[in-house]
Amino acid sequence: MTFQPFLNAVAAQVEQTTYGAYPTELYDPIRYIMSLGGKRLRPLLTVLSAHLFTDDWQKALNPSVAVEVFHNFTLMHDDIMDQAPLRRGKPTVHEKWNANIGIVSGDVMLVNAYDLLLDVAPSQLRRVIQRFNRTAAQVCEGQQLDMNFETRWDVAEAEYLDMIRLKTSVLLGFAMELGGMVAGADEPTTKHLYEAGVNMGLGFQLKDDLLDVYGDPDKFGKQVGGDIIANKKTFLLIEALHRAKGTKKEELDGWLNAKTFDKTQKVAAVTRLYDELGVRQMTEIKINDYFQKGFEALDSLNVAHARKKPLLDFVQFLVERES
Amino acid sequence: MTFQPFLNAVAAQVEQTTYGAYPTELYDPIRYIMSLGGKRLRPLLTVLSAHLFTDDWQKALNPSVAVEVFHNFTLMHDDIMDQAPLRRGKPTVHEKWNANIGIVSGDVMLVNAYDLLLDVAPSQLRRVIQRFNRTAAQVCEGQQLDMNFETRWDVAEAEYLDMIRLKTSVLLGFAMELGGMVAGADEPTTKHLYEAGVNMGLGFQLKDDLLDVYGDPDKFGKQVGGDIIANKKTFLLIEALHRAKGTKKEELDGWLNAKTFDKTQKVAAVTRLYDELGVRQMTEIKINDYFQKGFEALDSLNVAHARKKPLLDFVQFLVERES
Repeated sequence: MTFQPFLNAVAAQVEQTTYGAYPTELYDPIRYIMSLGGKRLRPLLTVLSAHLFTDDWQKALNPSVAVEVFHNFTLMHDDIMDQAPLRRGKPTVHEKWNANIGIVSGDVMLVNAYDLLLDVAPSQLRRVIQRFNRTAAQVCEGQQLDMNFETRWDVAEAEYLDMIRLKTSVLLGFAMELGGMVAGADEPTTKHLYEAGVNMGLGFQLKDDLLDVYGDPDKFGKQVGGDIIANKKTFLLIEALHRAKGTKKEELDGWLNAKTFDKTQKVAAVTRLYDELGVRQMTEIKINDYFQKGFEALDSLNVAHARKKPLLDFVQFLVERES
Repeated sequence: MTFQPFLNAVAAQVEQTTYGAYPTELYDPIRYIMSLGGKRLRPLLTVLSAHLFTDDWQKALNPSVAVEVFHNFTLMHDDIMDQAPLRRGKPTVHEKWNANIGIVSGDVMLVNAYDLLLDVAPSQLRRVIQRFNRTAAQVCEGQQLDMNFETRWDVAEAEYLDMIRLKTSVLLGFAMELGGMVAGADEPTTKHLYEAGVNMGLGFQLKDDLLDVYGDPDKFGKQVGGDIIANKKTFLLIEALHRAKGTKKEELDGWLNAKTFDKTQKVAAVTRLYDELGVRQMTEIKINDYFQKGFEALDSLNVAHARKKPLLDFVQFLVERES
């Protein structure tokens, strides 16, 4: 994998980043959540995007960690709001400590993200902070919309796509834009990178929804069907709700309203309904469309192919991922 | 009051600041908490500090609102953590909406504060953000220490003072430092302003603790004795715990451990103990000491008296305040 050296550098940079010492109750949760791992997808996009324009892509490392710290801040606060017990198979911060510590540790993580962002050239600083502010606000907007959708059964496809664009995709867009800004790319180019990242982010999130239903249990890492069991309003469920008519609608509503049920039976039945309604196929088509737009945006960049190769390989890895 | 025109300008600037539109559940709580009023102490310190060095103090208005937005962000999150039902006599955000909305609205407020801070000269931007980051992290550290102290009965005076320095005073210090930075004052001068603000912040917080016990019920605005009823670990209680011996200690412990009690009786008894233990007097001495240090720091600034007058008048107003 041509992106492996970049991933190693990002992982090492995350590892050596420090957050603060006293009081330990405030900073231990940050070290904890940052140590739980994850794909390091966002900081990797930042350094791979910087590498498009410069051999000195290492100067993107600190800003790239800002994006990862911000992402983990949102996870810490989202887990409180969702009352999630586990994150990457380990107790969430509010379970291991408590919700108050999760709130204030998350707050200081957001501040830490801004601190890491300061490591850019003076001429770039204002634009970097401005674009980060806009992105961070949008991620909060997406989280609020996601919460709003929990109590609604009439969410339109366009609304759902707008929500995941805000909650997930704009940060992938910013991660790539940031790499371009740090490397000194001009504004049309960094906007282009942003658009590529947003499209790949949409594909990435829809793939998340798809894998939760159709992932290989041996490779997926989480319980396949978890979203179905929890009635989580994913792209697949929203599509199914719009498409189901007659007996199929009755069956779907029956599973959604069932207070008690056999989990395996529910997952099997709803998955079959998704198949019959063509939801799987249309989700796969959407995913391919978004990734295709991302690839095309990268293709059209006026940059030597060798510079693009690690980034293209990484996007291909995201397209093919099974977990 | 020579500071009134500055206060009017700050209030108008807060009034006309916008935060975002969609989704309304995210941004309504920001407009709500910002509309609850308050003294606008922090932004006023920023513009009065800018006025020390320039007639164009209006350029400090947007950055000054950043400090007020940050302060209100901490209130929104602190109220969730403290499960406080009321803020300035009105329902808190998590009561009026819910805790999740309070968490994510607070998050986006912090982002909004950074956005308002961008309105400084390019040459100042990095230092402004750096100093704000440090201050914001310290405020979180102070909040965590405050929570840690809730379950401890052996908090030392120095620990308490360190906690309020972090939770409250450094932001007043930063507010003044920011005014100096925006007005182009050199670094030794802005550091000097910061120290003045920190000392006044310590006096301000101790005065808060004092007024809660000894305030005039007709002027105080809140229930006098609220801290005593709630066993809140204020400077006065910590001092009393250290000073009380023998029967006084037994009486104090009795009130602190009482599961049921007459509120008026408890407030009267603990207040009498504070008097007898000399806690009132020594708190007043501390308050005067800190404000004195603040005044001396302002005195020693090499700035025409007319430039200092509104700021000195405002500090005098803080010294004399009864609510």
